[in-house]
Amino acid sequence: MDILHYQKEFLTYLESKNWVREPKNLYEPIDYIIQLGGKRIRPVLTLMAADIFSSSHKKALPAALAVEVFHNFTLIHDDIMDDAPLRRGKATVHEKWDLNTGILSGDAMLILAYQYFENYEPVVFQKLAKLFSKTALEVCDGQQLDVDFETRSDVTIDEYINMIRLKTSVLVAAALKMGAIVAETNDENANLIYDFGLNLGLAFQLQDDYLDTFGNPETFGKQVGGDIIENKKTYLYLKALEVSNDHDKGKLKYLYRKKLKENTVKIADVKRIFKVYDIPNLVKDQIENYTQKAFDTLAKMDIKDADKTNLKNFGLWLMNRSI
Amino acid sequence: MDILHYQKEFLTYLESKNWVREPKNLYEPIDYIIQLGGKRIRPVLTLMAADIFSSSHKKALPAALAVEVFHNFTLIHDDIMDDAPLRRGKATVHEKWDLNTGILSGDAMLILAYQYFENYEPVVFQKLAKLFSKTALEVCDGQQLDVDFETRSDVTIDEYINMIRLKTSVLVAAALKMGAIVAETNDENANLIYDFGLNLGLAFQLQDDYLDTFGNPETFGKQVGGDIIENKKTYLYLKALEVSNDHDKGKLKYLYRKKLKENTVKIADVKRIFKVYDIPNLVKDQIENYTQKAFDTLAKMDIKDADKTNLKNFGLWLMNRSI
Repeated sequence: MDILHYQKEFLTYLESKNWVREPKNLYEPIDYIIQLGGKRIRPVLTLMAADIFSSSHKKALPAALAVEVFHNFTLIHDDIMDDAPLRRGKATVHEKWDLNTGILSGDAMLILAYQYFENYEPVVFQKLAKLFSKTALEVCDGQQLDVDFETRSDVTIDEYINMIRLKTSVLVAAALKMGAIVAETNDENANLIYDFGLNLGLAFQLQDDYLDTFGNPETFGKQVGGDIIENKKTYLYLKALEVSNDHDKGKLKYLYRKKLKENTVKIADVKRIFKVYDIPNLVKDQIENYTQKAFDTLAKMDIKDADKTNLKNFGLWLMNRSI
Repeated sequence: MDILHYQKEFLTYLESKNWVREPKNLYEPIDYIIQLGGKRIRPVLTLMAADIFSSSHKKALPAALAVEVFHNFTLIHDDIMDDAPLRRGKATVHEKWDLNTGILSGDAMLILAYQYFENYEPVVFQKLAKLFSKTALEVCDGQQLDVDFETRSDVTIDEYINMIRLKTSVLVAAALKMGAIVAETNDENANLIYDFGLNLGLAFQLQDDYLDTFGNPETFGKQVGGDIIENKKTYLYLKALEVSNDHDKGKLKYLYRKKLKENTVKIADVKRIFKVYDIPNLVKDQIENYTQKAFDTLAKMDIKDADKTNLKNFGLWLMNRSI
């Protein structure tokens, strides 16, 4: 089991597809966002799970493609909602074309994702489409909660965890479970790999929160301090509000009401308060907690020990990105 | 077979659904657009087809709902693209809430539509979902072509017919075929009812073009002359360009480059040119042509004569709206 091998195989499959057809103004933006790259982690998970449960991953390529196309659909529509000019260093679809193109090309991608399941016979098709619809709707719920949280001042940590579970983790979990469904393993295995993905997804997102503030600017892909600049109520901020004294709580809330042009001082102030209350270690504990939960599900899975080790190594590889 | 009976039954089913759940900001706009009303023609078609092919329409209620929810999804996203402030006399979703709500609630509705097919067993589920995906993507293609035509000066009548086929007729056709699929009739019947719907849909849309310019302001639901005000390249305009002399062609093109505040003179000028070239009768011929094509498919259908009469009467009812 080699992640790079799955990545390569998925990219070959991706390139074998002819994205652009008539009307070109609808499909060229789809080709553009698909070709923008990325680590293709979600489709790799689908192939990996299929390989583990059936020793064959090729059959899972269409399902893997559905997951990747759906993920890219969410990027196009989220970038509109966030008014983001750049995605992976290039212009976002609504910037390069326009708002209407972003909306309509995104809609088409959501439909295309469902079409890839048509490669499977009816029972597998229905299982995949059901899981996909449930997951896609959860991702919408998560996106809506994320928007709602921007204007709420009473967000709890439980609500935040629920939001990132919906917005990001369920798709990681579903990507794995789709591989299990294509491999036609038993329901218990399929549910266990889902739980593995869900907890690993939570750990990954919390780590993203951590790295956004305390990561190495040279290895973290995004701008360090971005969440602070944007006043994003991440786990770090919510935990700090929970454990800090009234003075620091007031200061944090004050800082998170401002949108500034020059953020060096704000970032330093927030980081100082986070450090006073040991937030970096508290979030690391949570990351460790969810990672361990993910690994615990492996013990219950009815697969070879070598595959459990492979899944664990994948988890470690994913989590050890340049802290 | 009574259209009002199907309408009522569908509305009862619609009202039995609880649309609003958490997060409320995502589902309240869905409830709003669904409750805005409309004639519910598409779901009625699904129920009617199921009744004809299996003498039972209740089983088709979830499929009918999928069609109606999809149709309302297209209304939300189209209203954003058209920057429309009103829909059925009430504020559009992006006006009442905001752009992001319109995008995300629309996305959720597209997914919800697929979920209603989960009420059917795998083989029927797959047939419905396949037809639905194909149709939904065609509707996106049609919408894109409609947008593209706005800035093109070389649109042909064939291209226009293809655009309205994709943008509006395929959904009417698919609504009927879904009823046939739920009823588990043979493929030939299912394809014939699809063709019936496709041609009737084209006739209906061409009639809409006609009424938009020559309809009775007191009975036509929209503003008469709206297409002329918006410089919409409808069948009437394209046909007039085809058959008029260079002077009138130039005048039409000149008039269709302007966006005016006061349109009385422009509308009168365009109508006068249309009348000089007998466009009202030419479009009526086409409406008759497609209506007849629709009725011709009925002859080939393996159903009771009484049902053929019913379908024909439905077509006549649909087409006889206040010319």
